[in-house]
Formats: sequence, structure tokens, C-alpha cells
Amino acid sequence: MLLPLTEAERKFKVSISDRVRQGMEQGSWIRRMFEEGASLKQRYGAESVFDLSLGNPVMEPPVEFNEELRKLVENPQPGRHRYMENAGYAETRAAVAEQLSLETGINFTMNDVVMTCGAAGALNVVLKTILNRQDEVIIFAPYFPEYLNYVDNHDGVTKIVPSDEQFIPRLDVLETAIVPKTKAVLINSPNNPSGAVYSDDFIRSLGVLLSKKAAEYGTAIYLISDEPYRKIIYDGQQCPYIWPHYQQSVVVTSHSKDLALPGERIGYITVHPDCGQRKELVDGFIYCNRTLGYVNAPALMQHVVRRLQAVAVSVAEYQQKRDFLYHHLGEMGYSIVKPQGAFYMFPRSPLADDVALVRELQQWRVLTVPGRGFGSPGYFRISYCVDDRTVAGSLDGFRRAAQKFGLS
Amino acid sequence: MLLPLTEAERKFKVSISDRVRQGMEQGSWIRRMFEEGASLKQRYGAESVFDLSLGNPVMEPPVEFNEELRKLVENPQPGRHRYMENAGYAETRAAVAEQLSLETGINFTMNDVVMTCGAAGALNVVLKTILNRQDEVIIFAPYFPEYLNYVDNHDGVTKIVPSDEQFIPRLDVLETAIVPKTKAVLINSPNNPSGAVYSDDFIRSLGVLLSKKAAEYGTAIYLISDEPYRKIIYDGQQCPYIWPHYQQSVVVTSHSKDLALPGERIGYITVHPDCGQRKELVDGFIYCNRTLGYVNAPALMQHVVRRLQAVAVSVAEYQQKRDFLYHHLGEMGYSIVKPQGAFYMFPRSPLADDVALVRELQQWRVLTVPGRGFGSPGYFRISYCVDDRTVAGSLDGFRRAAQKFGLS
Repeated sequence: MLLPLTEAERKFKVSISDRVRQGMEQGSWIRRMFEEGASLKQRYGAESVFDLSLGNPVMEPPVEFNEELRKLVENPQPGRHRYMENAGYAETRAAVAEQLSLETGINFTMNDVVMTCGAAGALNVVLKTILNRQDEVIIFAPYFPEYLNYVDNHDGVTKIVPSDEQFIPRLDVLETAIVPKTKAVLINSPNNPSGAVYSDDFIRSLGVLLSKKAAEYGTAIYLISDEPYRKIIYDGQQCPYIWPHYQQSVVVTSHSKDLALPGERIGYITVHPDCGQRKELVDGFIYCNRTLGYVNAPALMQHVVRRLQAVAVSVAEYQQKRDFLYHHLGEMGYSIVKPQGAFYMFPRSPLADDVALVRELQQWRVLTVPGRGFGSPGYFRISYCVDDRTVAGSLDGFRRAAQKFGLS
Repeated sequence: MLLPLTEAERKFKVSISDRVRQGMEQGSWIRRMFEEGASLKQRYGAESVFDLSLGNPVMEPPVEFNEELRKLVENPQPGRHRYMENAGYAETRAAVAEQLSLETGINFTMNDVVMTCGAAGALNVVLKTILNRQDEVIIFAPYFPEYLNYVDNHDGVTKIVPSDEQFIPRLDVLETAIVPKTKAVLINSPNNPSGAVYSDDFIRSLGVLLSKKAAEYGTAIYLISDEPYRKIIYDGQQCPYIWPHYQQSVVVTSHSKDLALPGERIGYITVHPDCGQRKELVDGFIYCNRTLGYVNAPALMQHVVRRLQAVAVSVAEYQQKRDFLYHHLGEMGYSIVKPQGAFYMFPRSPLADDVALVRELQQWRVLTVPGRGFGSPGYFRISYCVDDRTVAGSLDGFRRAAQKFGLS
């Protein structure tokens, strides 16, 4: 017979904080799919499961990466694994600034760059630096769900604004959403989960709107652009920059996708050279990089990426996978906005209940993530940074679901 | 003529949050000394300045590290830079557990280990996981000053308890300091800044006290032990473990000092296998490792340290520097508790005003840090993880200060 817990026992059972428990119970849909996928793989064998649920690129780093790493390791220099300044090596920051200046025609210097533990580290550093308690950060659905955690880490409040049918943020709604406590607007292009790329015109309009609202309220509103997929872009396009259109702007990014190094946690923050109070802001980033416990971006990887600023993985492979899936799913009757970048697509679910659709696909051992995990129920995310066997193998399941739900 | 700022201008000038500004203004003494030292080095040349202010080991990683790294780089394995589970590679976690089991006779498994971005990342993950708002964490003066930031990051409250003349925490004061909101007691042995090593008897008494108070209040009180200096220990001693004496215990550590890799951000958390709610706690650590933006410990370094769990830098060099300084400073009349580990000593300042003493030493181009930076005014910290030239060159300045302030 079980006796009721004493107060002491009850408290003792509570090992973790309320907010962490709550976060873990809500879980993330990506995580849930990962766990259900793992159990499917155990049951049927990994080769019989078509896992399109994760953003973990199958591609290897470019050959230049291995060459650079080998050169460094063959010539060990004293002090190469010691602490450096919390902002990162001057040489690496200068290399990032130089490449950015080349690409944008804007004069960046190393003082505009802080090396970080990936884009996730970068974003946490930026948010910690700028947010007072209850300050608001606006994001756009569909969004990368970790943004909610990152804003919450630093006691900010996330406000969610919808995008249009093409997954472009609704500026009319944004205008009404900005309030005096709005400290930042966070965009992500090329977008996870939609694959949308925001046009130069769109960013210009966004900049005009932010300037207007900042002037109206007499506040500073930062535009934070999360750009890890900048170089994963298709059909010979260029990904527009935010820099020409808004000065109070900060870019966070990493080499997780363009050099295929997600496990190495190497990224950086860049600030517009003409940003108001730029020095204070950058000093804040450096301070928070230290005090949040990142301390500095991993030393050896800082040395490696220094000479790889102009290098990226081949996007042709990703484009082929996109074209293949877009073509076949379209033929089956799925409604898809053709992705222009990143390695995701975000089709409309043939069922209003996107979780039911995802469960149906699971029956055919195809793993995807329901749109509600990204703030957009009625859609689902396909991640195609996987091998061709997995892409091709998923078609049967997609076809059966399409037939069952009357698409074709 | 300067016009007063308009409200809009005033707000616009405020780019960073109040708490970050406040933190930056208070600064850390280590940071301040670093900056003043940099300006002294610029004026007199680096070789004329004797910088004993930083904990950045001059020692290179052991040869085994370079061998292991070379082997890995010469045999690139596919997928080696991708995301892995947020807890880290199973093989690395298992290697850590195996070495710990060997050293302690306690049966650790990979499920008790989470790989992290250094000990700083580890400590932030642990605190985020366990702290509800306003929960208290007790630390002991003199303390590593970043602890204050780490507790504050997660909305906890730091309570400071003094140590005795030998820099051993005062358990009688601790007993009165523990309240129902006390969630953790954080210790650091070998200690930064004092070099003290806590004895097995002391840890046993601490464990008894924590068990007693936890039972009295019906709460869970974690003992968190920050142990990056465990293997930097002198005179053939062993650093006692907390494990035999308290089950609700967590160790955070890194390879920053024992493998001389501080820039690489590679560390880990270990939990007592018999800790109450162990699984929930570890799941919380893994969740917070992800959501705090660390995501995972750097991938390549996880591979490297996997086979280096039994390896460490030679402590003989550090011991020599300790002996040299302890002997000469003692002769000059400085009062010093002989450090038993780490690479710091914490002499009593011959002036009540430790900042004035540090400024005087600066006149002789010797850089140290005032004790008030560690919560213990009236002392100063010497960091001797520097080359012999710097150690020897500092003696003149120490001697002149000793003479000036009547020590000899």
C-alpha cells in the first residue's frame, strides 16, 4: 500500500525548478519526434525509417576545413588553447569583418565582431545584454521554437506576430504589435522552418517601420537577424542584408550550416558600425559572453574558421533534394511554398490537425514535425538535410497520406 | 553649448539593460587589473611587467593531447562535427564515468555525466536547472567572483559565509546561514583564490551538517563542488572526493587546468549515482544545456578528451613556483597560508587597505588582485601559473612593498 508523501518527501522529490520542469513537460515537438523516431528506429531498424525531423546536416565540412585543421595541428603553436580575450582572437574577428566588408561594401572592423559559442550562444548574449525584465521581443510565426527559451532565459517576454501566406512577416500586424517596451524584433532569413528568404524590399520596409516606431516612442528598437542559413540559398539568388536598411541592427550567426560544423559551437555577433551606442553594446556583449559562462568561442575552431570566411558547403546538393521533394510532393497534391533557402520546407497539412497528419506519416515511418511546434498549426516541417535514400524513401509515406486525406 | 538630452535621446543612449550596465560598472577587480596591466605593458613593455593577476595557465597541454588530436585529424570520420545528443557523446560520457569509478570506487555510468562548455557552462546549467526565483546558494569567502554572476543569471540569491584563518569554510556560520530557501551550497577545492584543499574530515562534517539541515527543513540541499583544480595538487597529496559523504551532490569541472585547455571550453557535470531524483536532475541538465544556448560541448574536443581521462599536466612545475614564492615572500615578512593546490596564493595584505597595497605593487610593475575582489578585503591574490621569469621578476616589487609597509 502506498502511503501519501510527507511534506519532506514531497519537497525532496522536487529536484528541479518549476520553470525547467514546465519547459521539459511541454517539451519541444522536435524533441518529441526525435524520441518517437528513436523508438521506431529501434523497432524497424534505422534504414527503414525516413527521418526528416532534424536540422542536423548530413553534409561533411568542405575540404578546406580539413586542410586548415590539419595545418594547424601539424604546427602546434604555444598558447593556442589558452584563454584569449572574451571577444575572441583579434585575427579571427578581423577576418570576419574583412569578409563582411567585402560582401556588403560597409566598413566593418574587428570592433564590430564578437566570436561566440554558435548562433545560440550569440543570441543569448545579445538578449541578456539588451533586455530589462519584461522587455518585449517580437518574433514571427512560424518561428524557431528555441527563441521562446532564449527570451525567457533573460526574463524577457516574447510577442508573436503572424506571417503571410508566403511566410513573409505581416508588417501591418507588426506595426500594431510594437509598444514602448519592445526592445527587439528578431527575424530569421533564410527561414527555419519555412525556407522563405526575405527580399531587399521587405527589409527596407521593415527598417522604415522600425525607425518610425522608435521615433514615435523615443526608444531604441533593435533589429536582430539570425542568419545561420545565409549561404544555403538556391537558384543563384543572394540573401539580402539588413545593414543598408536599419542602423540599430545586430546579426547573429554561426558556421553550423555553411561549414557544416554544428557540433563545434562556433559563431559570432556583428553590430552595424553606425549603430547608436555601438561601443557600449559591444562591451555588453563581451561582458555577457563571459558572465553567462560561455567565456569565449572555442579556441581551436576560432583559428580554423579564420581562413575559411569565404568558404561554404556546396548548396547544389541541397537544391537537388529540395527540387526532388518539391516536385514529387507537389504532384501528390501537397500545397507548398517553394523554399528559397535553408534546408526545410513547410507544406500545408491536408488535415487541419497537423499532429494527426504527422502521426499518420509516422505509420509509414516518415518522421516530420507538426507546424504547431513552430507556432503555425495546420502545417508541418520537412527537413531535407539528409541523404538521398531517406528523401527518396519518404515518398511512399507521403503518397499514402495524400491519398488517405483526399489530396490525390 | 550642450543642450539637455530630450527624453528620446536619453532613452536612445540606453542601449544595454540596467543589470548589465550595473555589472559592468562594478566590474570585476580581475578585469580592472587586466586593463591597468595592459596599459602598464604598453608603457613599459610586456617584459618589464610582472603579471600575477590572471588564471590563464602558461603551461602547454600534455604531449598526449597533441598526439590524440593529430590522430583524429589524420583520420577524419564522417559526422564528427555534427550535432550529437545534448548530453554529449556516449563514448566520452562513458570514459569520464569509467575513470571516476576507478578513482573513487563508486560505480558511475554515462547516465551520471553530462558534457558541457567548460566548468562555467556546467555551473550555469546546474544552477538554471535547480533554482526557483529567489532560491539561495551559499558560497564561502574568499570566492571565485563569477559565482555571483552565475547565481544572478538564474534569478537566485547568493549568501556568503566566511572561512577560517586557514581558508576552510566556517561550518558553525554555515549552520545558521542555511534556511528553507537554501537550494545549494557551492564549494571549490583546491580553491581559487586561496589554494586551500578541503580535507576528507571537513567534507564529512559538511555532509553531516547538510543532511541534518535538509532533514530539519524537509528540503533538498545540493552540494555543488567546483573542481577544475582537482589534479593541481601538491606534496603528493590526493584531493578528497565529496561523493562518500553526501548523496545530493553534483561536481562541475573542466579540462581547462588539468589538460591546459581553458580556451577550448570542454568540461562536464557529474551527479552522485545515488542522488535522489537523479534521472530528473540529469534530464534537467541536458535540457538546460540545450535551452541556455550551449547546445552541446564542442564536438572535436569531446573526441580528444575521451582518451585523456587519466592524463594531466605535470604539477611539479607549479609546485616549484609555489615553493619559490612562498619561501621568498615568507622571508620578506608576508603572512601566507601555504597553498596545497591550484596555482594561487592569498597572502594577508600588510595594509588593511588591500587596494592600496595592490596599487603600490603596481608602482613596481607587479600585478596582483585585491582580496575584496574575492569577498575578502585585507588579502591579495597572486596567480603563479606564469613563467619563471615573471615569478622571479616580481620579487623586487614585493620586497619594496614589504619594506615600505614595515614587514621587514
